[in-house]
Amino acid sequence: MSHVRWLSARSSRLLSSVALRSKGCGILSDSIKTCGIRTMASKVLTLENLNPNIIKLQYAVRGPLVIRAAEIEKELEKGAQKPFKRVIKANIGDAHAMGQSPITFIREVLACVALPELIKTGNFPEDVKKRATELLNGMGGRSAGAYTMSHGVEYIRRQVAAYIERRDGFESRWQDVCLSGGASNAIKNVLQLFCNQVDGKPSGVLIPIPQYPLYSASLAEYGLGQIGYYLDEGQGWALQTEELERALKEAASTHAVRAIVVINPGNPTGQVLTRENIEEIIKFAHKHKLFIFADEVYQDNVYDEGSKFYSFKKVLREMGGAYSSNVELASFMSVSKGYMGECGLRGGWMELVNVGEGVQAQLYKAISAMLCPTSLGQAAVSCVAAPPMEGDPSYKQWLQEKTAVLRSLKERAHMIAKTFNSMEGFTCNPVQGAMYAFPRFELPPKAIEAAKQAKQPPDVFYAFKLLEETGICIVPGSGFGQRDGTYHFRTTILPQPALLQEMLNIFQNFHKKFTQQYK
Amino acid sequence: MSHVRWLSARSSRLLSSVALRSKGCGILSDSIKTCGIRTMASKVLTLENLNPNIIKLQYAVRGPLVIRAAEIEKELEKGAQKPFKRVIKANIGDAHAMGQSPITFIREVLACVALPELIKTGNFPEDVKKRATELLNGMGGRSAGAYTMSHGVEYIRRQVAAYIERRDGFESRWQDVCLSGGASNAIKNVLQLFCNQVDGKPSGVLIPIPQYPLYSASLAEYGLGQIGYYLDEGQGWALQTEELERALKEAASTHAVRAIVVINPGNPTGQVLTRENIEEIIKFAHKHKLFIFADEVYQDNVYDEGSKFYSFKKVLREMGGAYSSNVELASFMSVSKGYMGECGLRGGWMELVNVGEGVQAQLYKAISAMLCPTSLGQAAVSCVAAPPMEGDPSYKQWLQEKTAVLRSLKERAHMIAKTFNSMEGFTCNPVQGAMYAFPRFELPPKAIEAAKQAKQPPDVFYAFKLLEETGICIVPGSGFGQRDGTYHFRTTILPQPALLQEMLNIFQNFHKKFTQQYK
Repeated sequence: MSHVRWLSARSSRLLSSVALRSKGCGILSDSIKTCGIRTMASKVLTLENLNPNIIKLQYAVRGPLVIRAAEIEKELEKGAQKPFKRVIKANIGDAHAMGQSPITFIREVLACVALPELIKTGNFPEDVKKRATELLNGMGGRSAGAYTMSHGVEYIRRQVAAYIERRDGFESRWQDVCLSGGASNAIKNVLQLFCNQVDGKPSGVLIPIPQYPLYSASLAEYGLGQIGYYLDEGQGWALQTEELERALKEAASTHAVRAIVVINPGNPTGQVLTRENIEEIIKFAHKHKLFIFADEVYQDNVYDEGSKFYSFKKVLREMGGAYSSNVELASFMSVSKGYMGECGLRGGWMELVNVGEGVQAQLYKAISAMLCPTSLGQAAVSCVAAPPMEGDPSYKQWLQEKTAVLRSLKERAHMIAKTFNSMEGFTCNPVQGAMYAFPRFELPPKAIEAAKQAKQPPDVFYAFKLLEETGICIVPGSGFGQRDGTYHFRTTILPQPALLQEMLNIFQNFHKKFTQQYK
Repeated sequence: MSHVRWLSARSSRLLSSVALRSKGCGILSDSIKTCGIRTMASKVLTLENLNPNIIKLQYAVRGPLVIRAAEIEKELEKGAQKPFKRVIKANIGDAHAMGQSPITFIREVLACVALPELIKTGNFPEDVKKRATELLNGMGGRSAGAYTMSHGVEYIRRQVAAYIERRDGFESRWQDVCLSGGASNAIKNVLQLFCNQVDGKPSGVLIPIPQYPLYSASLAEYGLGQIGYYLDEGQGWALQTEELERALKEAASTHAVRAIVVINPGNPTGQVLTRENIEEIIKFAHKHKLFIFADEVYQDNVYDEGSKFYSFKKVLREMGGAYSSNVELASFMSVSKGYMGECGLRGGWMELVNVGEGVQAQLYKAISAMLCPTSLGQAAVSCVAAPPMEGDPSYKQWLQEKTAVLRSLKERAHMIAKTFNSMEGFTCNPVQGAMYAFPRFELPPKAIEAAKQAKQPPDVFYAFKLLEETGICIVPGSGFGQRDGTYHFRTTILPQPALLQEMLNIFQNFHKKFTQQYK
């Protein structure tokens, strides 16, 4: 298994560190004889007494394979001879790292907020200067160096609420919008609220399989039960109510299942849920009293002609009645994805719907100890929630840049699914949205046997081979979860078109060779 | 008690929210009769089934008093008549919000990193352009929009290690430096490692009383035992070994005490520990196998002529032998304090010393699920760790700005302690460092009685009166911890000199009036 490899690498480092450090401890007279042991025993914090949830926590997107990829990059830098010239990081949805250019409007506003004298001296469009000025007016001492409120600058929270209203056609209260340092922070803050026993049973959370491993990692970290429901690969990764019922029923004896996570558009699966499917999920959540985590960070990333993004909030409001007034929902959004891809800025938000005010006050209290999300990340949120409008000086360029990014992503989404589907033993659902393909592939029995020998799951074995032989870094399906006996991997669609084509060619050759080798 | 007030405000909001929401639920036929109750019962997440640690968590620096201060500000904006014209926020160490100007070098670098074309087109000094270029070279796709490694950009980690080496005169490994979104994040990440039972007892952590409430809040959040040791007010808030021994001994039957937190320079207490005192603490930690959390975010804020900042790392290395090679230490630093005061940028770092490599790998793995600290916050860290050097084009201005801030803070530190000491019933230790005074004051028995009637601790009662009558917002001592029967508050020294003088005058008048009233 992948973490066996990881553990053993770690253990050997640990042992060498013990050997190294024991050199210094002979100074204590009573420790001379048993120096190595004393030193090991004398560590306050060891793998044995560490928080066990941290040991369990796995985050495959930056796991052992990615660590190895970074090592290979360093080896290449030092001139090592490899069958390839560079590592292609298709493991993480990191658009700028793969050559996507930033949206000019966002960066101009950020520069002016960071260095306000640029508003006067710089050569920037009026709407940029206006936005920067308004953002600064919302900050203490008119400086991005001041703490903001823990839930964010009010001016920006109001912009987000207005964005949600435009998107959904329903009221959004700015007080229910909470800015965050990327979506991950907000997701964790809300998940943490569920750490409790209910009716003598630990809380559990329904998450999709395959899922984005922030969820499995956070559930492990918080000691919450992970209740997996399988997405239906044969139906384009749709959610089936029967499967949700099955998962819930099976967990009922051991867990108080209190929430359901839905990722739409899907990560790693790339599907865009139909409105009907969302309705079914809301009915299911209402029936079983589940809090909905709607991970909607890819809401701008819809490529499929027949698909459309519907927010859970919109569908819930349209359903009306008890659904609209009772079903508790947190919807998450980020500036890291979409057309802007500003991962490094750490900006995001959540909207809380139907959450009890007392609970909301507790959540806001809990985040207050962390002071605030980054002010410049919040400024980026402002630019995403309230982009230039028609007639604004920056509008034309903004629209051009946005359209170009989304058009190109759409082409790549199409190209990648088409290529994988053309490969023997591969099937790949269309990439309707998000930034990933999650193809399924077959492995010959001899490869499975070789993986067993190498003490790795077959998909991890395959991914390591791919990395070592081609420099392509993808994430094996087991990092996200998959049905037993099936093999997948996640690759981003983010390499620029020429590089993506090259990557897919290399991939095809590798797969042919691999299949040949283990035939 | 303060949280009684808070709870009741919360409860009433909760009740009104239930009343509000019950309107919508008549649509479900089976719920018409018991609509209100059903709605309340139908919330998935309630104050009753919420994570109880979140309920316990308190963070006074942004607590009920500060929430009330924000309300008062809104009231003033709307034209409400008050005995004062503005709220003076002396509750939080937020330098820019109180009028301190940013350091030009930092902001110029940030602007260039955010908008790289400024490197070519902008009129910036060569060292600014060089730094921005080097930072961009360390980022994926040469963009601040790319994720960085979870422990930060290697180039910046190396700069931090070099900073630590210059400061201490001892080697610092860049691999042991981990960048973070402000110090708070890093502190929480390391604290969380201790969540475990050892020898059948829950882990406990020694923290100073008074303490910075991030610690009490995080211990509550993680369910870790809070073991308070009292700082010696009569000895300038020094740490006494006997007191540490007492605290440890008393906790031994209920907790496995595994770590000690030391804040130096002190928050809220403003003391700077002597080298001797630090040695004693390290000996104590070694003797009892305690991991040291050295909160050293105020390392640049030393005002007292006779005081000097010594890092725990330096003292530990100088002590040599088993201390140097065995005592586990995490030292925390932030760009929010010092002379730069860049709170909103969320930049910080920690250095891990003598931490087992396996444990360190687990820590780095745990933070990887949160992707990375903000890239622009990291850029600010770069500017702080590697500021302009003599001969660099930005050096003169940088030094001027830095010196001016620190000189002014020094004057204010002196002014504030002197003023409080001149007030009847007040004693205030010198503000040797950090950004706060923590004066002790006496309250007449009638005031204590009035507080009892108001169901507030006496210092909270006093602080609310002060806020409502003068607009001055400070944090009562009970938010940090204090010996029973003593009353303190924390005020920052951050209002600009004229405002600080005005604040102190208002304060004196208020206190006279208050004492008169309750004589």
